Amino acid sequence: MKLAILGGGGFRVPLVHGALLTGRTVTELVLHDVDAGRLAAVERVLAEQAAGADDAPRVRTTTDLADALSDVDFVFSAIRVGGLRGRQLDEQVAHAEGVLGQETVGAGGIAYGLRTVPVAARLARTIGELAPRAWVINFTNPAGMVTEAMAAHLGGRVIGICDSPVGLCRRVARALGVEPATAWFDYAGLNHLGWLRAVRVGGEDVLPRLLADTAALESFEEGRLFGADWLRALGALPNEYLHYYYFAREAAGSESRAAFLLEQQRGFYEEPSLASWERTRLEREATYMAETREGERDDLEGGGYERVALALMRALAGGERTTLILNVRNGSALPGLPADAVVEVPCVVDANGARPVAAAPLPDHALGLVTAVKAVERATIEAATTGSRAAALRAFALHPLVDSVSVARRLLERYLAAHPELSYLA
Amino acid sequence: MKLAILGGGGFRVPLVHGALLTGRTVTELVLHDVDAGRLAAVERVLAEQAAGADDAPRVRTTTDLADALSDVDFVFSAIRVGGLRGRQLDEQVAHAEGVLGQETVGAGGIAYGLRTVPVAARLARTIGELAPRAWVINFTNPAGMVTEAMAAHLGGRVIGICDSPVGLCRRVARALGVEPATAWFDYAGLNHLGWLRAVRVGGEDVLPRLLADTAALESFEEGRLFGADWLRALGALPNEYLHYYYFAREAAGSESRAAFLLEQQRGFYEEPSLASWERTRLEREATYMAETREGERDDLEGGGYERVALALMRALAGGERTTLILNVRNGSALPGLPADAVVEVPCVVDANGARPVAAAPLPDHALGLVTAVKAVERATIEAATTGSRAAALRAFALHPLVDSVSVARRLLERYLAAHPELSYLA
Amino acid sequence: MKLAILGGGGFRVPLVHGALLTGRTVTELVLHDVDAGRLAAVERVLAEQAAGADDAPRVRTTTDLADALSDVDFVFSAIRVGGLRGRQLDEQVAHAEGVLGQETVGAGGIAYGLRTVPVAARLARTIGELAPRAWVINFTNPAGMVTEAMAAHLGGRVIGICDSPVGLCRRVARALGVEPATAWFDYAGLNHLGWLRAVRVGGEDVLPRLLADTAALESFEEGRLFGADWLRALGALPNEYLHYYYFAREAAGSESRAAFLLEQQRGFYEEPSLASWERTRLEREATYMAETREGERDDLEGGGYERVALALMRALAGGERTTLILNVRNGSALPGLPADAVVEVPCVVDANGARPVAAAPLPDHALGLVTAVKAVERATIEAATTGSRAAALRAFALHPLVDSVSVARRLLERYLAAHPELSYLA
Amino acid sequence: MKLAILGGGGFRVPLVHGALLTGRTVTELVLHDVDAGRLAAVERVLAEQAAGADDAPRVRTTTDLADALSDVDFVFSAIRVGGLRGRQLDEQVAHAEGVLGQETVGAGGIAYGLRTVPVAARLARTIGELAPRAWVINFTNPAGMVTEAMAAHLGGRVIGICDSPVGLCRRVARALGVEPATAWFDYAGLNHLGWLRAVRVGGEDVLPRLLADTAALESFEEGRLFGADWLRALGALPNEYLHYYYFAREAAGSESRAAFLLEQQRGFYEEPSLASWERTRLEREATYMAETREGERDDLEGGGYERVALALMRALAGGERTTLILNVRNGSALPGLPADAVVEVPCVVDANGARPVAAAPLPDHALGLVTAVKAVERATIEAATTGSRAAALRAFALHPLVDSVSVARRLLERYLAAHPELSYLA
Repeated sequence: MKLAILGGGGFRVPLVHGALLTGRTVTELVLHDVDAGRLAAVERVLAEQAAGADDAPRVRTTTDLADALSDVDFVFSAIRVGGLRGRQLDEQVAHAEGVLGQETVGAGGIAYGLRTVPVAARLARTIGELAPRAWVINFTNPAGMVTEAMAAHLGGRVIGICDSPVGLCRRVARALGVEPATAWFDYAGLNHLGWLRAVRVGGEDVLPRLLADTAALESFEEGRLFGADWLRALGALPNEYLHYYYFAREAAGSESRAAFLLEQQRGFYEEPSLASWERTRLEREATYMAETREGERDDLEGGGYERVALALMRALAGGERTTLILNVRNGSALPGLPADAVVEVPCVVDANGARPVAAAPLPDHALGLVTAVKAVERATIEAATTGSRAAALRAFALHPLVDSVSVARRLLERYLAAHPELSYLA
Repeated sequence: MKLAILGGGGFRVPLVHGALLTGRTVTELVLHDVDAGRLAAVERVLAEQAAGADDAPRVRTTTDLADALSDVDFVFSAIRVGGLRGRQLDEQVAHAEGVLGQETVGAGGIAYGLRTVPVAARLARTIGELAPRAWVINFTNPAGMVTEAMAAHLGGRVIGICDSPVGLCRRVARALGVEPATAWFDYAGLNHLGWLRAVRVGGEDVLPRLLADTAALESFEEGRLFGADWLRALGALPNEYLHYYYFAREAAGSESRAAFLLEQQRGFYEEPSLASWERTRLEREATYMAETREGERDDLEGGGYERVALALMRALAGGERTTLILNVRNGSALPGLPADAVVEVPCVVDANGARPVAAAPLPDHALGLVTAVKAVERATIEAATTGSRAAALRAFALHPLVDSVSVARRLLERYLAAHPELSYLA
Repeated sequence: MKLAILGGGGFRVPLVHGALLTGRTVTELVLHDVDAGRLAAVERVLAEQAAGADDAPRVRTTTDLADALSDVDFVFSAIRVGGLRGRQLDEQVAHAEGVLGQETVGAGGIAYGLRTVPVAARLARTIGELAPRAWVINFTNPAGMVTEAMAAHLGGRVIGICDSPVGLCRRVARALGVEPATAWFDYAGLNHLGWLRAVRVGGEDVLPRLLADTAALESFEEGRLFGADWLRALGALPNEYLHYYYFAREAAGSESRAAFLLEQQRGFYEEPSLASWERTRLEREATYMAETREGERDDLEGGGYERVALALMRALAGGERTTLILNVRNGSALPGLPADAVVEVPCVVDANGARPVAAAPLPDHALGLVTAVKAVERATIEAATTGSRAAALRAFALHPLVDSVSVARRLLERYLAAHPELSYLA
Repeated sequence: MKLAILGGGGFRVPLVHGALLTGRTVTELVLHDVDAGRLAAVERVLAEQAAGADDAPRVRTTTDLADALSDVDFVFSAIRVGGLRGRQLDEQVAHAEGVLGQETVGAGGIAYGLRTVPVAARLARTIGELAPRAWVINFTNPAGMVTEAMAAHLGGRVIGICDSPVGLCRRVARALGVEPATAWFDYAGLNHLGWLRAVRVGGEDVLPRLLADTAALESFEEGRLFGADWLRALGALPNEYLHYYYFAREAAGSESRAAFLLEQQRGFYEEPSLASWERTRLEREATYMAETREGERDDLEGGGYERVALALMRALAGGERTTLILNVRNGSALPGLPADAVVEVPCVVDANGARPVAAAPLPDHALGLVTAVKAVERATIEAATTGSRAAALRAFALHPLVDSVSVARRLLERYLAAHPELSYLA
């Protein structure tokens, strides 16, 4: 079983490798990146990690995509076009205009998408030609938009993942005192834009019980973030990223994470070793916990993205059929959205791929927001694939978190000036 | 043919009466109002207006609803719950929170809806009982929401009207040099939230020609309001009220019209006469023209609401079958919206009512916005009919022009404090 | 205004010409046909018809399609591929297998469609190239299927017509004592497969009153054909052609009209004159009346196809906007059917074409039948445009009136043997 | 874990009991029936069956429904209203009119539904009151219609089962040389009216390979039944019961099974014992195999209904989450059908019930047939719950396998005369 990681020089690759060491599904791991220096740094860490492990996958690195894809069974796509420096510029431009700069939501997400989609679409086309039977697991953000752009070339062979829905489900289950494996979580929406509408245990929905219990609600991150009253008015638990929508005034311009990460990772890449990687990772998590006041998060969840990815990979490799919340083409799962729109819903996964379970219709306000944001994603993809500036302007101007066409116009101008990767729009 | 005007003491009633004088469809006009003083003022003006006219309708006033509705053929509903003073409070509270206070859009529209829907629903129920075969033409704002609430009791017997779509179509036709009667205007959306997507002449869409011509675009109000570039990026002409959405940052908190109108009308109601009414009306129009820089507007259009109402009334009374852009239940006309949601689309009208013509699907971004705003309208109606504060909070918080749940909470508190009519939510 | 009639040598062309003599919309009439003999016969009759008429259109004939289409404003498509002799073979093969041989419904309609669609599609492509702004009015049967095949090339520029819906509406109005012009007829379905579900007068549905009145029901053709009990159980009035479905056992193999028509028209074409044409036409009507026991039909309706066609042509030429029941692409008019499927529903018609009015959803049983028959039409079009025998077999086998795949197989074999035009399927 | 079997005196109960002996999920088994004699016969056989088994469930019988339902965890509903004698009458009346008398399809199925639905609906209401947390597994035919009627009272707590889809999937897998557990079977439709459209192995559809291979196709029952040519034209594998539709002419009036079963079971119930039960069962299977020429069927499949039921019960009891093809409410799973219509599709099952996986849309011809048959099911349920004879007439007349309203009328009269249970329609 051969796995290729595109963006193999990324800081989180050792997390995946660590999970692989316990999983034994993969026998060969190829790291591909455009930056040989980062590849070498990560390779060094992986070698240290694997020391003493039986059955560790054979690891090699390459900057040749065709080499990475040859005879591959699985591809993880985890690239970052423009690097953290690009993300920092995304934030700065957005903040200068008084709007959100987050890398997946709002103006920042659109800018990042405009840079990333052309590259991701090219990768998808190449994978479709060189490795048509490989399963592609997409981590690259903005994950919903990027997965949709890749699916135009790969169909059901590409699946996007995110750890926020499963994290929410686990936290809710803990607050309810319910064993997650026995519950059915009725979660639906887009990536970073979904709602947990019901939690069924023994066939009964126990979410109303949680919504009625302020103390239980405020025992976990999303409960505190949104407040018991608002959650009761909504009748559902939103993904944490919906904070950017429901509290847009408070959130706009506030966050700024890229500079911290950039500074922090510089140290690691300059002197790469397992020890410096672990120190850096712990530091990063500590700042995240401080920000979110969610100290126990990591322990509780037993890992994030990498665990979801491994569970998915195992099912695709022919293990037990399972159900996971994934980003796949909608088909008829979520009424009111196009069949080829990528949505985030519970799926049945086995060696034949991921099929969405039919979801109850979204409540009208959620469908409105999802439709509006999906329209922005599609305008971004249109701009990225056709070079249309009008489509790029529409993407910025029609985003619910950009409050004026004039602002959108200035954002577009400034992003064009900041990012050479956007010259295709000129 | 008997017509009753609910809100018969309103300042615009002489406009309707003036139109009736030329139309001869109506033989008896009953003005109903809760304020006998205003009724008397208006009655005096109408008597002056009718002087010398042949076939002027017999006019009488009443504060007894059953009397007004007895044997009535048509009802115009044109009430203003809370009066202009209520509208002024709506504006003040919204502005204090930095959001839009307009009477039909955003927070102001929700507050106005929360006051108006309970009254309008009661009227509709009474009409359904006392005059089940009457046609009800709704002018009361927010017109889409109020018509939908009334349709729960009256079905297809209530039709909402607005002059902004027909005004847009006429201005576009003029800019194109096209005779409006020969064109088909593909307009669709909700009241104050619609788009003109195509203008067919001889079966060909000539809107692209207009969009390509900056000078022609900027020859009329909406063209200047939105700017040629944005209209080209959109590929459609939005209703002027979409300015509040597309340029929300610039619009928020800026407008303030109730105080002016309140002051201005006080003079008229203190000394009512045809002369003072006409002077006041001209003054009002002058300020409107100054604000909109649309001096020729009135001449051009040959009247607004009252003309649409009369054209509608004539068709309902058995005149020629015609087509008008009206607010009616959707059925299957606009894909993606519920069958019982009131939408604003071209309709075929005759003595059997108004049936929407099947509309092309809205583009995704427009469908997202329309779905979100319709959800707010429905949450407002739910609050108004069940007294649910959670629904009222959802209405404010989920409106695209209210940028935080915290803001929504404060708006709700302040409106409850300002308006005794909202005590049902306490 | 120039009108071209394709199939200009057809027996019914004098009817159209007669109507044109009263209408004055058309100044030039070009008859096109592949059979110069028939053209000459018809031209002779038209000359006699026009004698003494002021403003009669200039008439000429041609066998050159490009000539006929040059500068044309309207095209009537009224061809009969294979002639009446082909229709007779269609009937004979169907009867030999014990199924319906009618030219628009069942096995006979599929056979006729397989012969006609390739020719109609070629004509449509040519019209689209040579006369892209012409309006095409399709009379050619099976009209729904042929219009759909032509619309693939002509979009909204082709409109199919039939006189059976308007005839039903008129007969129902007479039975109800209602003036047709004041009523709204809620008719919907496919060509020869529709239902009148409501008749609104003054906004009220008066159809229940008719359904409750057996004598009134049995005063007209469809009432007698279906019987009062069945109509009450259905709650709607079906198009007369639904008799073939609701009484399939009684209808199968019974009808046989082509031989009669063939014999009858032979006389006329051998000795063409206005007198022989009129005699033949009266004879034909007499046998039709005898069969349907609907003596007064023609007087009542004031003409069939040709009147609908003229009303349509007048509206398309810029006359008053009107409403007619027509065959056009569905869009969103009839929920549950594809947007590009041609359906038969009330449309608003003006110089910009025909737009369907949003129709109430069909009842479930009607939607089932309509979906099944539309699937057959599409399989027929697929066979006709790709040459797929499997699609042709599916068309026969899946038709609700063909009761076995084995029968379908034999039908296909026999039709292939009978018709040289079907060699493209071999 | 307590299981109640309604219809506990039925001949197939020992099959379920035999399966329970190996399963150990159930500790108490209560047999309920209206016929104490049959209950005693079956109880005797179960006692013999359980002899020597460890952990056999405690078995008792009752004619008191409240007793049977007290504290029950699972209910199997397997009643036969009117008994085999009723089924025989259903067949006789249908054959006398020349239409199909089968107990689940066509006129026979409607007659059986009209007798059964009122009883099943009453049972469902009682279970909802007395055992609201029980899971109800419906075996009672016609299973789709009966499950839909029960779901009006039990929602997702009732699940209908059938062994024909899983049997088809197994036979197809064997013909393809594929291990069923590794494949995804894209099966969808209604009970006894579904199609296997794709078989995915490693993410690829291998059904086209089977369709291209005549020998492989004809190696199993459905392949021989429909013939390779027709299956290739369809591009899918239909449920065996579709033979009644696709070869209606050949099938009508031919089958007659009730008399044989009636005669055969009489012997068993007169002298009940394990030995006579087994002899009778083998004899029954032998005649079935002779009719279907499917000798190996039983071995291959390792049991039918009872195995599906046990797999379902185990998942509902909290075992591994699994996927099964079941009869549940549609929701959004199968586009074009109502949300509350019961459909037969792959479902994810766990302790929270069965949720349908989003299915690809049915091809148009299949959607037409499914819509038409579902309309008949709903008309039958309407007749059964309101006593409307018009609805009953519609059910018969609109069934695709009843070829005339006249035939439907006679069927209804004759069934009313034959069955005292139908007196509610008089």
